[in-house]
Amino acid sequence: MSIETAIVALGKTLGDRVQTGESVRALHGANESYYDEVLPDAVVFPRSTEEVALIARTCAEHGCPIVPWGTGTSLEGHALAVKGGISLDMSEMAALLEVNAEDMDCRVQPGCTREALNEELRATGLFFPVDPGANASLGGMAATRASGTTAVRYGTMRENVLGLQVVLADGRVIHTGSRARKSSAGYDLTKLIVGSEGTLGIITELTLRLQGQPEAAASAVCAFPDIDSAVAAVQATMQMGVPMARIEFLDAECVRAVNAWDRRDMPETPHLFMEFHGSEAGVAEQAETVREIVSEFGGGDFGWSTAQEERNRLWHARHNAYYAVKALRPGCRAVTTDVCVPISRLAEAVTETAAEIAQSAIPGPILGHVGDGNFHAALLIEPGHEGELAEAKRLAHAMAERALRMGGTVTGEHGVGIGKKRYMEAEHGAGWQVMAEIKRALDPGNILNPGKVVEVN
Amino acid sequence: MSIETAIVALGKTLGDRVQTGESVRALHGANESYYDEVLPDAVVFPRSTEEVALIARTCAEHGCPIVPWGTGTSLEGHALAVKGGISLDMSEMAALLEVNAEDMDCRVQPGCTREALNEELRATGLFFPVDPGANASLGGMAATRASGTTAVRYGTMRENVLGLQVVLADGRVIHTGSRARKSSAGYDLTKLIVGSEGTLGIITELTLRLQGQPEAAASAVCAFPDIDSAVAAVQATMQMGVPMARIEFLDAECVRAVNAWDRRDMPETPHLFMEFHGSEAGVAEQAETVREIVSEFGGGDFGWSTAQEERNRLWHARHNAYYAVKALRPGCRAVTTDVCVPISRLAEAVTETAAEIAQSAIPGPILGHVGDGNFHAALLIEPGHEGELAEAKRLAHAMAERALRMGGTVTGEHGVGIGKKRYMEAEHGAGWQVMAEIKRALDPGNILNPGKVVEVN
Ligand SMILES: Cc1cc2nc3c(=O)[nH]c(=O)nc-3n(C[C@H](O)[C@H](O)[C@H](O)COP(=O)(O)OP(=O)(O)OC[C@H]3O[C@@H](n4cnc5c(N)ncnc54)[C@H](O)[C@@H]3O)c2cc1C
Ligand SMILES: Cc1cc2nc3c(=O)[nH]c(=O)nc-3n(C[C@H](O)[C@H](O)[C@H](O)COP(=O)(O)OP(=O)(O)OC[C@H]3O[C@@H](n4cnc5c(N)ncnc54)[C@H](O)[C@@H]3O)c2cc1C
Repeated sequence: MSIETAIVALGKTLGDRVQTGESVRALHGANESYYDEVLPDAVVFPRSTEEVALIARTCAEHGCPIVPWGTGTSLEGHALAVKGGISLDMSEMAALLEVNAEDMDCRVQPGCTREALNEELRATGLFFPVDPGANASLGGMAATRASGTTAVRYGTMRENVLGLQVVLADGRVIHTGSRARKSSAGYDLTKLIVGSEGTLGIITELTLRLQGQPEAAASAVCAFPDIDSAVAAVQATMQMGVPMARIEFLDAECVRAVNAWDRRDMPETPHLFMEFHGSEAGVAEQAETVREIVSEFGGGDFGWSTAQEERNRLWHARHNAYYAVKALRPGCRAVTTDVCVPISRLAEAVTETAAEIAQSAIPGPILGHVGDGNFHAALLIEPGHEGELAEAKRLAHAMAERALRMGGTVTGEHGVGIGKKRYMEAEHGAGWQVMAEIKRALDPGNILNPGKVVEVN
Repeated sequence: MSIETAIVALGKTLGDRVQTGESVRALHGANESYYDEVLPDAVVFPRSTEEVALIARTCAEHGCPIVPWGTGTSLEGHALAVKGGISLDMSEMAALLEVNAEDMDCRVQPGCTREALNEELRATGLFFPVDPGANASLGGMAATRASGTTAVRYGTMRENVLGLQVVLADGRVIHTGSRARKSSAGYDLTKLIVGSEGTLGIITELTLRLQGQPEAAASAVCAFPDIDSAVAAVQATMQMGVPMARIEFLDAECVRAVNAWDRRDMPETPHLFMEFHGSEAGVAEQAETVREIVSEFGGGDFGWSTAQEERNRLWHARHNAYYAVKALRPGCRAVTTDVCVPISRLAEAVTETAAEIAQSAIPGPILGHVGDGNFHAALLIEPGHEGELAEAKRLAHAMAERALRMGGTVTGEHGVGIGKKRYMEAEHGAGWQVMAEIKRALDPGNILNPGKVVEVN
């Protein structure tokens, strides 16, 4: 009973889909954030639910950790095999299995990415709205309860996963949820697995809610004299109940980064990037309301457009903001924060954070999905520079504490992984122990992504 | 260690808030549906979270079941003390603790009813949208994952509970969720407790999302020649993405009942009752779209109104439909079904159900929240008539099986209680065992509403 014997046993049935070469392990030992590389002992590429179940049974028998891997874009070291074992790469289970246009839902395998899904859906007039920017896998997105720019209108993975097929630690396969829009039939296992980061089960299929392409869409960009006025305009917009499709904040430094990266010439002050969805009349009405709010809060020219090309350009710029920001400091790594606070505290939270970062020695552009009260600072540090890492951690810590003080959360969308575990007790109190009790009940051998989210010992 | 010793111990600290009189026990042993009366051994009226925690510790020590009681309107025998023990009546914990108008949320005690909450909110311009018709307690609504007429627009308790304070079986008090609009901080304990019917914890506080009163609202009533055309119009409306605030179906017999009960004179054919919320222009646009759909499907006159009085009259009639229907057969009891299917199967499901009931000997008017694919037949039986009960059960069983065959659920909103337990295995397969594993982890002594939802032995 050991990791090695598990890998040998797996190799016997899965052949060259169990890989132990250095380079493939290194790929699955890296992360998009600042965590040290941790190589798994092997990388396994299943092709069916039955294979995943077999892998789970084998690993359970040998006590070998299983760490699911979607596309590896998570930002808190989620997919690192910190206790060794196998990285379970879901990329060969990436099919769109079924689209029900009438019910506006679809069934998809977890390795399918959101861009691939939307590409396949294009002809149906439907789309899957959750958009974390990165071209993440739908399994990974469900596992981290991801959201992104459109959550303000369409919700997060929490609202958009209707059901799951899940392989448990002992190899049992369960189905959660149904295709009905609602149900009161017992405990909500779908919502329990969504956000569990591979620690309770391996997602092998998802039933997702789709949206109809809006009849009309428009985008708008608006510069503000300062952070406070931009964020206050967001608060007012949300409180007016305008059904924003997107409302994103970028601080001056972020705008500078985007200008450089994307060859744009926006004034280098805080900005809001916005999108409106609805009927022709509805979009016009929404935009007019927001134009008024924005001007009330000192916003500049309301750069509004219904041209698809202009919208694409805008969201391309926003989606690349993370890389644009990192390019401000070539070769750097980013410590990405992810707080979310009640809307009423947003201006205060962003302003205090910006002031604190301004006083520190490291750059930390701020951007965020402010319609939800969620924002990030990308704290840019030199790899290997202990002092800078410590400083970034100090700033990140202050942000987390502030969010908790304001009744918010230390992670609005990225998840816990290893990076946010130390705040779980502060955020959840005894609830964190309850999470561990659930983990122990469903994974008594602690083989599913051990070391993440909860503390079971 | 027994129920009696627990009750004595509780009496020592809570005095006359531990009641063992016949009449109060009988009140808490009755139910709105057809289940036999089951008297609890005592009824306890806590006034604070601390008291609930103390009660839990005492009952855990003595192995005494605790069955939370909101207003007792649940329809599947949920709140019956089928294993004896205490009925924990939450009516003395009914305060509205806090309203955050800016964040559009509030904190409330579980015994507060939805009507009382909305009464208190009136001056704020906000309202709590979930509306099961019955004036249920918010704790009971969360515990059953209730919904009702407005879920099609505003979601169910699943979407509208942001956080909870919960007393666990061992007396620990946990807080779930936060006031942030979203979070990825670990397992979603809020959603696990919502819908758990008092079997995993006792809800002692709820943080609820509120909605702004719509700028404009309108109602509409429309008669259809037959069931099929009415339901097909609903399908088309939903597929067009019209953001209906309410869209309710009543079959001809239901309309007859409402006419009699409410002194109306609607044509006795299937009807849709509708409501629109939005801006003035938005409401007009929605209504126009639906008017066109409805006439395409052979609907009659589109009786539309923006008058508050007319709207109130309409929803008063709808809310009393259950009692109106029962009045069709004086002295009867109702076996209420509650299936929910994917929208694409709705017309088929309703038509087949109606045909089957038409062939049976008992009346069973059909009505439902069809925008969600959810409908009920109220099967009216003579109390004590074994043959009729058996026939009602046969019809209810056929509906449940049909819903499962169509990818739906046996309970869209009422919950499992004792009545739907026998379908849990068919609906969830091995997932039902997982629910039991969670129950065992959180309530090892099986003292919280034992015998409901899951099977732990
Ligand atoms: C540039 C950039 C921008 C980003 N912006 C956003 C954003 O706006 N919003 C947001 O929410 N996130 C954002 N992220 C973070 C990241 O994209 C999300 O966390 C995403 O959901 C991760 O998906 P993935 O497929 O890459 O998962 P991975 O990183 O591969 O895995 C993430 C976690 O999920 C688990 N997992 C993966 N697949 C499965 C499965 N099938 N079953 C069970 N568990 C599984 C893994 O074990 C791991 O714990 C961003 C990341 C980058 C690099
Ligand atoms: C006329 C009529 C119409 C109805 N229409 C609808 C409808 O449209 N939609 C709908 O969803 N339902 C409907 N119902 C059913 C019922 O109103 C709901 O199930 C409601 O949510 C029950 O709330 P309650 O306060 O009466 O709970 P109770 O019946 O008192 O209890 C229900 C369950 O919740 C548990 N519980 C209660 N309080 C707590 C607490 N604080 N903590 C933990 N557990 C608790 C109880 O133990 C029990 O298991 C209707 C009922 C009637 C009689």
